[in-house]
This record gives sequence, C-alpha cells and structure tokens, in this order.
Amino acid sequence: MGNDPLIVFTPSGKRGRFQIGTPILAAARQLGVDLDSVCGGRGICSKCQVTPGYGEFPKHGITSGPGALSEWNAVEERYDAKRGLKAGRRLGCQAKILGDVVIDVPPESQVHKQVVRKEAAVRNIKMDPATRLCFLEVGHPDMHEPTGDLERVRRALHEQWNICDATADITLVSKLQPVLRKGNFQVTAAIHRSHKNTRPQILDIWPGFHEAGLFGLAIDLGSTTIAAHLTDLETGGVIASSGIMNPQIRFGEDLMSRVSYSMMNPGGDSEMTAAAREAINNLTEEMARTSEIDASLIVEMVFVCNPVMHHLLLGIDPTELGQAPFALATSESIAMDARELGLSAVNPRARAYILPCIAGHVGADCAAVALSEEPGKSDELVLIVDVGTNAEILLGDKFRVLACSSPTGPAFEGAQISSGQRAAPGAIEAIRIDPVTKTPRFRVIGSPLWSDEDGFEEATAATGITGICGSGIIEAVAEMRIAGLLDESGLIGSSSQTGTERCFPEGRTSSYLVHDGTRSAGPKITVTQSDIRAIQLAKSALYAGARLLMDERKADKVDRVVLAGAFGAHISPLHAIVLGMIPDVPLSKVTSAGNAAGTGARIALCNVAARREIEQTVGKITKVETAIEPRFQEHFVAANAIPHKTDPFPELAKSIALPSPKFNAGGDGNGDIGGRRRRRRRA
Amino acid sequence: MGNDPLIVFTPSGKRGRFQIGTPILAAARQLGVDLDSVCGGRGICSKCQVTPGYGEFPKHGITSGPGALSEWNAVEERYDAKRGLKAGRRLGCQAKILGDVVIDVPPESQVHKQVVRKEAAVRNIKMDPATRLCFLEVGHPDMHEPTGDLERVRRALHEQWNICDATADITLVSKLQPVLRKGNFQVTAAIHRSHKNTRPQILDIWPGFHEAGLFGLAIDLGSTTIAAHLTDLETGGVIASSGIMNPQIRFGEDLMSRVSYSMMNPGGDSEMTAAAREAINNLTEEMARTSEIDASLIVEMVFVCNPVMHHLLLGIDPTELGQAPFALATSESIAMDARELGLSAVNPRARAYILPCIAGHVGADCAAVALSEEPGKSDELVLIVDVGTNAEILLGDKFRVLACSSPTGPAFEGAQISSGQRAAPGAIEAIRIDPVTKTPRFRVIGSPLWSDEDGFEEATAATGITGICGSGIIEAVAEMRIAGLLDESGLIGSSSQTGTERCFPEGRTSSYLVHDGTRSAGPKITVTQSDIRAIQLAKSALYAGARLLMDERKADKVDRVVLAGAFGAHISPLHAIVLGMIPDVPLSKVTSAGNAAGTGARIALCNVAARREIEQTVGKITKVETAIEPRFQEHFVAANAIPHKTDPFPELAKSIALPSPKFNAGGDGNGDIGGRRRRRRRA
Repeated sequence: MGNDPLIVFTPSGKRGRFQIGTPILAAARQLGVDLDSVCGGRGICSKCQVTPGYGEFPKHGITSGPGALSEWNAVEERYDAKRGLKAGRRLGCQAKILGDVVIDVPPESQVHKQVVRKEAAVRNIKMDPATRLCFLEVGHPDMHEPTGDLERVRRALHEQWNICDATADITLVSKLQPVLRKGNFQVTAAIHRSHKNTRPQILDIWPGFHEAGLFGLAIDLGSTTIAAHLTDLETGGVIASSGIMNPQIRFGEDLMSRVSYSMMNPGGDSEMTAAAREAINNLTEEMARTSEIDASLIVEMVFVCNPVMHHLLLGIDPTELGQAPFALATSESIAMDARELGLSAVNPRARAYILPCIAGHVGADCAAVALSEEPGKSDELVLIVDVGTNAEILLGDKFRVLACSSPTGPAFEGAQISSGQRAAPGAIEAIRIDPVTKTPRFRVIGSPLWSDEDGFEEATAATGITGICGSGIIEAVAEMRIAGLLDESGLIGSSSQTGTERCFPEGRTSSYLVHDGTRSAGPKITVTQSDIRAIQLAKSALYAGARLLMDERKADKVDRVVLAGAFGAHISPLHAIVLGMIPDVPLSKVTSAGNAAGTGARIALCNVAARREIEQTVGKITKVETAIEPRFQEHFVAANAIPHKTDPFPELAKSIALPSPKFNAGGDGNGDIGGRRRRRRRA
Repeated sequence: MGNDPLIVFTPSGKRGRFQIGTPILAAARQLGVDLDSVCGGRGICSKCQVTPGYGEFPKHGITSGPGALSEWNAVEERYDAKRGLKAGRRLGCQAKILGDVVIDVPPESQVHKQVVRKEAAVRNIKMDPATRLCFLEVGHPDMHEPTGDLERVRRALHEQWNICDATADITLVSKLQPVLRKGNFQVTAAIHRSHKNTRPQILDIWPGFHEAGLFGLAIDLGSTTIAAHLTDLETGGVIASSGIMNPQIRFGEDLMSRVSYSMMNPGGDSEMTAAAREAINNLTEEMARTSEIDASLIVEMVFVCNPVMHHLLLGIDPTELGQAPFALATSESIAMDARELGLSAVNPRARAYILPCIAGHVGADCAAVALSEEPGKSDELVLIVDVGTNAEILLGDKFRVLACSSPTGPAFEGAQISSGQRAAPGAIEAIRIDPVTKTPRFRVIGSPLWSDEDGFEEATAATGITGICGSGIIEAVAEMRIAGLLDESGLIGSSSQTGTERCFPEGRTSSYLVHDGTRSAGPKITVTQSDIRAIQLAKSALYAGARLLMDERKADKVDRVVLAGAFGAHISPLHAIVLGMIPDVPLSKVTSAGNAAGTGARIALCNVAARREIEQTVGKITKVETAIEPRFQEHFVAANAIPHKTDPFPELAKSIALPSPKFNAGGDGNGDIGGRRRRRRRA
C-alpha cells in the first residue's frame, strides 16, 4: 500500500493511494470525489474528463511525471477525433494510474456542479437533480433461469449503479422489450430518485447510449401569467424561458373572482383546471419546439403557485379558499406523475413536484421565494416582498421567519389603471418629473433612451408609446408626490394649484398628462385621480402586511428589504420607499431578487435535496392571516397617505425642500385619511 | 397491579390485569388480542362484540360474577334496538372491566378470522386484507395553525390508528373537502397497506361511519374464460362468482395463435388488451349489479393468468413469449392502480395485484395454484396439474418444488373434438360403456340422472343433449379403451373387430356412436378417430410434462396427485389414470382442488401476507422449460399409447381381463407410436 502511487484530486483535495493500473474514475469513486459518469466507465459518455497536472506540487507533496498515467488510448483517440477533447484532458475511465499524480476535476465534470446565478447576493444552485441517466449492460434472457426483462434491468441497476429495488411504471414495462433488443441489451435508463420515502423509479429507457440529455421545466403558475424555464438537468443551464397569459383570466381577473366563479358555476373549477393545464401543455410544446429538443426528454416539472392556482392545477375545487378558515385541501408538497395532472406534452412518465403551501393565502410561490432567498439563514432581519396580484411577504432572520399574503390587487401590474397595461414593448416603465417645470421624461420598454434624449422617437417608432406598466405607474405616483403635484392624502392639485397645465380637470378631480400621442394617432397617457387611489390601496395593503409581520415579530424596523417577483425586479427602490410601499430602510439595503419564485422553482428542479429543505423550512414558518387580523385593517387605513420622506434620502433633498402641498377638492374623504395617518403617527 | 381485575380472553388464552374501568377493547388491544374495530372504540361499528363468561373457570383460575363488567349502557341499548345484539353479547368498547372475567371473542369479531374453504384437505383463508376501514375524527381547520385537510386526516390516522405517513392520490384529495364537511369532520377512510415497501394509502373516504363495506375481486383471466369471485373484504365471504368467455378468442383460440395475431398485426396486442379489459369491466359491472353492491366499493382486484394473458392484460406485446427464449417483460408480482389497466368499473383508486409469473410459459395462474395447494409444504411428493388449454404442472415437496407448462391444446376443454363443446347444460360430462354390450350410458350437465335411468328424457328435455364436454371426452376415450373398442395405439376397431354396430366406418377409420339425437332433431354424438388422436396428443403432453419434472427431481413415482383447474374438478381420477394423463398412483391419492388458481387469487385478495409468501415461493421454484427440452419430446411420443392398467385398480379387473385388442388400419403410424412406447418401457 505504502508504495502504491498517490493520487490527489483538486479542487476537493481528496487523496489516496491506489494500485498501479487503477482507472482515475475508479479511484475517484472510492474516495467519494465528485466525478460524473453516465456510462459507468465504459468510455462512451465522456462525462469523466479530467486534467492531469504534471510537475512539482509542494502543496500536495507530490512530483508528477509524464509517465504517471497510462498512455492515451484508442477510446480517447476515437472520442477526440469524433468530438474533440480539450487540450490536456483525459477520460477518467480510460487513464490509469501508474505513478503519483494530481488530477483536477473541471466544473463540467462534477455531478454536483454549481450553476452560477446572475443575480447578485444570492446563492448558486448546486446540481443534484432527482432524475439522472445510467448506462446499463443488461443480462440476456436465459430459459434455464427465466427472469423478466425488467428484473434483469433492475439487477443491472443494482450491480452497476448500486440502485436497489427500482420500480417501473407499466407503460415503461410495455416498451422495455423492444428497447432492450434494439440496444442489444445495452440501454440508458433515466432513474428518478424522490426525496420522499419511496423507491427509485425507472422513468424511461433508450437503446444504447442516450446522448440527447434530460430536461426539466420550472413553472411559476401565476394568476396572470404562466412562466416556464426549460432547464438542462445535466448542466443546470436554462435553455429557454418563456411565458404566456394564464387563460383562466377569462373566468376572473383576480384570485377571488376565480374562486367565486367556481362557487357560482358547478364544474367551474374543472373548466379552469382544464384551461391552465392546456396552457401549460401548449407552452411546453412551444418551448420544446423553439429549443429544438424532444419534449419527451422533459422528465421533471416543478410548480410554484399561490394556493388558488395550486388547487386549480391539481383539480381541486378552491371554494374553501374563498372563505374563512381558508382551509387548503392539502398543504404539503406533492410529488406525482405529471400525466395525472393532464400534462401530456412531456415524457409520459415525467414527474411533477409542487412545492408546499404555507397557508390558505400563502402559497407554494411564497415557499419558493423562501427557498431562493433563504430568510431563515439571514443574520439581519430581512423583509421580502414578492409583488404580484397578491403580495407574498416574508419577514425573518435565522431565529424566526413569518409569512403572510396581502391582497394588493392588480394595480401594481398596470391593471385597473386608466392608461395601464402589462409590461410589454411600448409601455412606460420609468418616469421622472422635473420638480420645477413639472415636465415628465420617461423610458419605454424596448428602448434604453429617455424621452428627452436624441433618437428617442426613432427608437420607439416601432412600438409606439402605448401605456404605463406597473413599475411606471409606481414611479409616476412617487414622482408626482416629489414634484408637488400630489398632496399627502394623494390628491392631484389643479393647474392653478400646481402651476402646470399638465394638471387638468377631469370630472371633479384633476389628472396629470404624461404624454399626448394623439398627434401621431397614439393614446393620451395620463395619471388620473382614481389611478392614484388604486395605487394607494395597493401600496397600503402591501405596507400593512409588512407592518403586521413586524408587529408579530415585535420589530420597529427591518434591516434590509428584498423586492421579488418579475415585477419587483423593475421597481425602483427609491420610488417604492417614497410611495410608502415598504418600510423605510437605507436605499443601499433594498435589493431586487428578480423572479425569486421562479428561481426557487429552478432550485427545486435542479437539486432534490432542496425539496426536503423547503418542506422543513415551511413547517417552521409562522403563518399570519391578514384577512382576520383587525390590526391589518388599522395598518391598511393608516398607510393610505403618502407622507414626505427626508432622511435617509439625500437624493430627494432638493425636491423635498419644497413645501408640502395640500390641495382641497370635493368631499372625497382625503382629510379623513390624512387624519388617520396622523393618528397612526401618534400611536 | 396485583389487585387489579384479571381478564382472560378466549380462544387465544391471552390474559392480563387491568385497572377497574378499562374497556374490554382497550385491554384486548394492549394484550394483542385479535378483536376487530373499525370505529376505534366509539360504539359505532359494533365489530368488537364479545361474549363475557360468568361463573367458575378452573382452567383459567377465575371466578367471574355478574358484576365483573360495567352495566349495559345506552350505546349498547341503541345498537341492540337498531340492529339487535345476540343474547349474551356486549360491545367490547363499551363494557368496562370491574372484576375478574373471561371474555370470548367470537370468530366474526376477529380481524384475522378464518374463511372456511369447502374443498377438503386444503387450508382455510386467514383474513388479513390489504385494505381496511378506519373511522376517524379529524381536527377542524384552524387559521392560526393552517394545515391542509389532508394533513389533518393523516394526523388523525397517526394518532387514532397508528398509521403513519399515509399517502393520498390527487383524486382522493380533490374529494376530501366536501366529504369532511359533510361528515362534520368525522369520516371513514379505507386504508390500503401494501406488502411492498411503500407507504399506506388513503384509498377512499366517506362522510361519517361507512357501513356499506368493502369488496374485492379475485379474477382468473384464462385464455378461454374469465372467472371472477366478488368477495367481502371484511368477512372473506364470496358474494358472487361469475364468468364470461374471453373475447380475445376472436383473435385466436389458443395462446400461440394470439401471439401470432400480435406478431402479424401492428397494434394487434392493443386490440386484445382492450377486449380483455372491456370484458373485465363488463363482468365487474354485471356482478356488482346482480349482487346489489356499489361497484365503487370494490377496492381490490387480484389477477391470476398465464403469461400471455398477463402481458395482454398489462398492455405488453406478447411477441417475445412466442419464441425462444420466451422472455417475460416482467416476471415479478405487480401492484398498481387498477385504473392504469383501464379497469374503470371499480373504485377509481382501486388497487390491482397480479401474482408473479414463474417463467415464460408458467404464469401467475400456476403461482396461484402453488399458493393454494402449497406443494412446498407437503411431506409427500405431490404432482399438481392444472388442466386448461395449457397445463400447468407443479411437482414437489417441502424440499424442492419444480414447475413447467405443457401445451396440451384445447382438446381437454372440448375444443377440436368433433362433438365437443364447452361445459354447459346439455353437454355429456360423464360416460360409461358396458364392456360386454359396448352400449354407453351417460350423464349430461344439468341433470343428476344417467341416461338409462327413469326420467332422464324428461330431465334433459329442456337442454337437449348437445355434445361432449372435456370431462366427458376423457371418460369416453378411457371407457372405449376399457371396453375393448380401442387398441393400445388408440385405433378404434371396426364393427367386425369390436362386435358392435356402434363402431361404424367414417373415411378410412371408424367412429363410435355415443348418442343419436337425430330422431328428435338433435345432433348425432360420436367419438371419431381424430377425436381420439386429439385426446392422445393432449394427454401425452400433460404426461410428458409431469415425467420431465419427475426426471428433473429424479423421482420414479409420485406419492399423490392433485387435479386442479375448473376442469380438473370434473375429471374422474380413474379415467385420467386409465387414459395415462397422469402417472400411476393409488386412486385414493388423487384429489381434486377445484379451481385452485381462483382459490389462490382469493387467498391473495383476502390476505396480504400471502402475497409476500407466494413471491418468495415463486423465487424458489425450479423452472423447467418444456419447449427446449429434448426429453420432453421423447416423453411426449412415448406417452401416446394407451396401455392396459391392472394394478392398482381392482375396479378395472373385470374389463382388463379381456384380451387387449390390436386393430390394424391404414398407415397412420400407430405401430410406430406403439413401438416408441415399448422402447420407453425398456428404458
């Protein structure tokens, strides 16, 4: 033993002595080095590529000469000729140890490789998918020892991969015999290993060595949109991301109207279930086609969604979710066959995993945000808001995490806003109002230019300027307040009060003109008083939810804020704070996590251990029900106003130096709301 | 403790001391006494009825007074008024222990009650079904601790029945909420516990206490007929037995012609699969309707069948079973959802269990025979033949069991016989030929009278005399041999050779007239030379299979013979031996096991442990493949003749005293066959 060659693997640093002639892959397996192999060391898959290091390695106490490994062999030659091996690389299953050597395992040869996420300050995804490929050499049938083909496949799995007691669906069994014979009893099996207490499953099987890979779909099933990430289950790479409108919108814009539809129309839930499933199937087919992959190679689907979408996806009548005590039919995570959900576009034996719900109003989407953002691992007290039609709110740190959901309504998504529209090319997504001239400048989706920059008109000629999306309306309202066009109660001043003709009367109140496109047959884009009211309601609901959790946690302030949601990614933190959407924190402490729910879905798709992790995490989250909490109403009413902010925003010093306007209009109750706001300040 | 009252349960003899006031059911549970309860001791189900004994019990060292139990209470009163309690009975959950007492648990109150089988010399069935009812009191939803309804059902199962980690199909979850609310959170759940390494499953759920019971179907899926036993899963009683023709017959009479159909016609296997499944659905609906039970209460199905039927039921192309090496797609037992087999007439979540196959030609039906007849527990060397279109043959004792299948063809079922028909009213099922006058007398199905008895004509007027069924043709051939109408080679003598006009020429050979019904517009029923040849081929195959197993086991003789199969039940052992279907044994050592495969299916339906038992047993059986075994051909040819039998059949002394005839006809090779028979005797 002592004279056997020493092998040191990097980056792991794992080391051991092996007999001369031991393949590198075998040594790696014995040492538990994370070195991939699908073909089990037969020189077919090339997943076990390594880079030997020659020379002196004082750190490892090794000097390695060129004779430390067996010579380049025919298998490597063939692979190199066919596909090309990077210079200096060897196949770990072919190169045999002859002397002391340092072997580097490049990231792409690691099973548990890290998928780097683009978003800052978030953890990368460690690859450990539930479904993996295994190349098998299956025993031939023998009349004198008659066992079924399936039983011989299972034996091969046991002997060649140490995968015991695998199950197989009857639809797999029915295709087994031709596949085995076509591959001359060499096949590649896709093996699914659930994190739940169940047996491994032979999910599919292909003749010979299967090179076309395996894929998964991470799906964020929202009330308004269905977004999907088509992911390579070997590399973790996102092949394509795509989204479509949720066709359930025709049964009701928001969640409660869909629950009502189900309550009022017998079989209404089934209609909505069918609509969502069909849309998912269409989206899947479309993504597979444009990505040029065989949809039957999609073997895993992970879903995140709010509780109503969750029930409707599963074919459960959501009626109970529409009334106290908001009982979920089931709250724990669900692992099942995708085909039982009518998801027929994927592999017929594809598995579906649905993250657990947290409570009747706090769904699997919020669980996914918790999985992605990990508030329970935070040293600081972090507030995470996932803004959509409903806002999911998490507050916590490593000691305790709380969650609630708040009914913000669709205003933040541009719905119920006079010039509102969803985020699409042509929509105003950012806006600044000069505090002196009261003139706006803005940016529309599809162009990086501001409206007062050269070339803006040309750049937006194709899309036009069609409306204001969610992030645009938030900025518009905040900027109007900064520019003195709104008073604290949210009332738009008249032209005489504000000194600009852009404020013009509409009915008993005033509106603010952002852009008049009528000359070029475009729309006139304004912010009306009722737009302001809609945003005030939405932001009050959001703020009240956050405050409720802070009360529960007995916290006066939070250390940092994370804005999540596809929409959250586009909110300007400054304007969110000006508007009072979120509690005051230094601007540097507000970050965007992008589509955190979608990221959570991707994590659960790529890493099976993360599924158990989030299931345990969810069990520990304190659930707060906003609908029955009297303090929620109090916070909601108190949060209606848009007070001035000074500290900690030096950026705003110029504008807030202006006196706070106070406009009087007809008896629309502003004074009252202002009064409540004041009461709250006293409290 | 020492002063606590002593309770002794009979018949188990289990005893213990319990605090005053302990309910009898609680004491039984603590002692592990087999006392049933579905409602968990709530006085609803009345399954825990017991009979207290008062007086002196010297055997148990107890004297029990009338005050030994608490008084008859309101729950018992109500139950007695509503349904009636047998005199002397108490409800075990209501009656509390006050003093020393002896408590008898009547058979119907035992969970693991014995179901007595009618057939002699076979074990009874011990009830231990995979699916049982559990009454549950489920926690109400609570907004402050939001868990799903399913999770609260699971908690109740855990707390009230110690059933942990139960799973539920999504179709169950989707009906959960209305059922819970209808039952005010009191429900009865059907819990399925597989013997495989899987979690218990909530199979169905009903509001309140479910009184309509649970049922199962044991199905013998034969090539020719599909037979089903509708069984009460609580009592084990057979509610109804019924059978229909297997509609696959239109694709081919026997197994090989069905395999050929599949090979020749793309999609042919799917046609046959659909036909069988539809027939099973129809049979199920019909049985449920005539038994007046709700088919959705059928929660378990157990199938036994030969390998080709097995594959076609499962939707697997049987092509590989038609050619060496006769590879099964899967050989082990299968537990799956019945709906995945398209079996839609039963509960939507009903489970299907299919017994393991033994080899490519030896199916789950043979495994079921082994389960029913237990050759592996026999002290004597027992030969079990299950005669159908294929014969399944088991030979063994407690040391070793061997199995093979032999292609007897359908002659034993009356097919390919000129006057043959299946066993139905009007068919001749028994026949005797006077060795002197050569006149036959016979019995037809539907009447107990022989044809020479008074009233026979009246008794058979309704059905007529329509043909000869399997058991009839065997007796006819054997009786013809005994009466000297056949020589050893199987040739029918002419009228001049046999001295009776009943032997008449047909073509180059002779036929024997059994019954001329032409006067009353009925058929002329004869046994032709080609009928004799068909029976000779069938019996040779059967005998050769048995001999092959004996060779393998190095046995010259067997100690006893069991004839199994619906048809086996009707074979006269005497005639079977005369014909040479089975090796010579004393007549007293030949028994009939009736439909042993069907019984095996019933055992597996009623007792989940029996499933594991047969899976293990099958693994230990030595499989012998007749198709590739040269000695099978030798035995087959050698067994063609019908030699005289003297010992051990004194019953035959009279007839065999006649000289053995030897007829000569055209060159049909008789001499040759006779010659081989002689060679075998020398060997």
